Amino acid sequence: VKSAKIGKKIVTVCGVAKGSGMIAPNMATMLAFLVTDANLNSTELQSFLTVAVDDSFNMISVDSDTSTNDMVVCFASGQRSFSVTNKLERDAFQLLLTQVCQDLALMIIKDGEGATKLIEVTVKGAPNHTLAKKMALNIVNSPLIKTAIHGEDPNWGRVIMAIGKDPELKVNIDKVDISFGRQQVFSQGKPTGLSRDDVREEMIGEKVVLTVNLNLQSGTGTAWGCDLSNEYITINTAYN
Amino acid sequence: VKSAKIGKKIVTVCGVAKGSGMIAPNMATMLAFLVTDANLNSTELQSFLTVAVDDSFNMISVDSDTSTNDMVVCFASGQRSFSVTNKLERDAFQLLLTQVCQDLALMIIKDGEGATKLIEVTVKGAPNHTLAKKMALNIVNSPLIKTAIHGEDPNWGRVIMAIGKDPELKVNIDKVDISFGRQQVFSQGKPTGLSRDDVREEMIGEKVVLTVNLNLQSGTGTAWGCDLSNEYITINTAYN
Repeated sequence: VKSAKIGKKIVTVCGVAKGSGMIAPNMATMLAFLVTDANLNSTELQSFLTVAVDDSFNMISVDSDTSTNDMVVCFASGQRSFSVTNKLERDAFQLLLTQVCQDLALMIIKDGEGATKLIEVTVKGAPNHTLAKKMALNIVNSPLIKTAIHGEDPNWGRVIMAIGKDPELKVNIDKVDISFGRQQVFSQGKPTGLSRDDVREEMIGEKVVLTVNLNLQSGTGTAWGCDLSNEYITINTAYN
Repeated sequence: VKSAKIGKKIVTVCGVAKGSGMIAPNMATMLAFLVTDANLNSTELQSFLTVAVDDSFNMISVDSDTSTNDMVVCFASGQRSFSVTNKLERDAFQLLLTQVCQDLALMIIKDGEGATKLIEVTVKGAPNHTLAKKMALNIVNSPLIKTAIHGEDPNWGRVIMAIGKDPELKVNIDKVDISFGRQQVFSQGKPTGLSRDDVREEMIGEKVVLTVNLNLQSGTGTAWGCDLSNEYITINTAYN
């Protein structure tokens, strides 16, 4: 549940979600239900929801596999009105809805099969938002990055590998910066020389934040995933 | 090493490859060197090699992650001549070179980190060869399929999931057939009712053959991969 003052009214968005479980016939299912007291017709609400989902549920990945029965719905009771034609009020509601979706999305990831760590990957300096998001998903889906983070190693070599995975995403390696949390391990195409011990604090927690700056243009995108553990293999091998 | 009689000459192609190991700084490397006694100039040889690589080294995946230093080279000594303008002779050499590349590619996969099974996925009945190959790679890269096969379960539900993963690849589910080896587990959009025991023989060996027929058009493509085991996680987590 999150609320925000929009115009003169307090508008609230409330959501519940389930996910990352195994449902017969063996497909991971994600269901999310959202309600708000905002006064919006279905067209307006759908357009807010699409933006919110694109930057939340569509930016999480447990194992890159997709479900046959994902669902996100949002209901509006209409008790609180605000002006959708006022950009300030519209932006405020969009932010509120996106935040609730992101909160739910992160809960799903934390609940991922065998997950011990939440991984947040932000790509900055990309040509645009879409390409930044695509690269962030490539990084967060890489098994070699997921296993390295499971082993708490700030392995910039594997990050470089994942950055170059999609030939459509152009990179100038001499401009790339890579940080784990507040520790920069790679700067302008070269390792900074930080040891694994130097970066230890950023790796041992339940959330690992990986930031890649391509230093090309201003596109930014964030994706969330989880580490890949023996527990994931066990769950998905010996389920019978 | 493979030889074939092309025109009146025996032409030989010989190759060596290494792959699937971990090389500092933590990148899987694949190197393949091929030699042939065929009399071909570099332009002709490159064009044969490109076709061969597209259907061999470019169709294998251990874990979907890519290397920063793959390499395939082919040398021609020129001792045996055949006519590249004769379609029959050209096709014969192409087949020979592609087969040697496929043999090497499969050896790399069998040597994959933690791999216990080679998985061969053929997609038939696709709109064209390119889309068939794309879907075959999606299937062979799916962690849920890799773990199911590791657990020796002919899990058609997960195959359906992977078929639908890429929204660009259109499928009519009511036409889809799925077989593991000689056992058809899914026919025209419905499970055939075979039990896990019925399909056991096809799952317990070192090679599992998965065939998906979309029954749309005549495009066919094959990809090779390996199962996903606890050993893969251990190798890629505790490498320090």
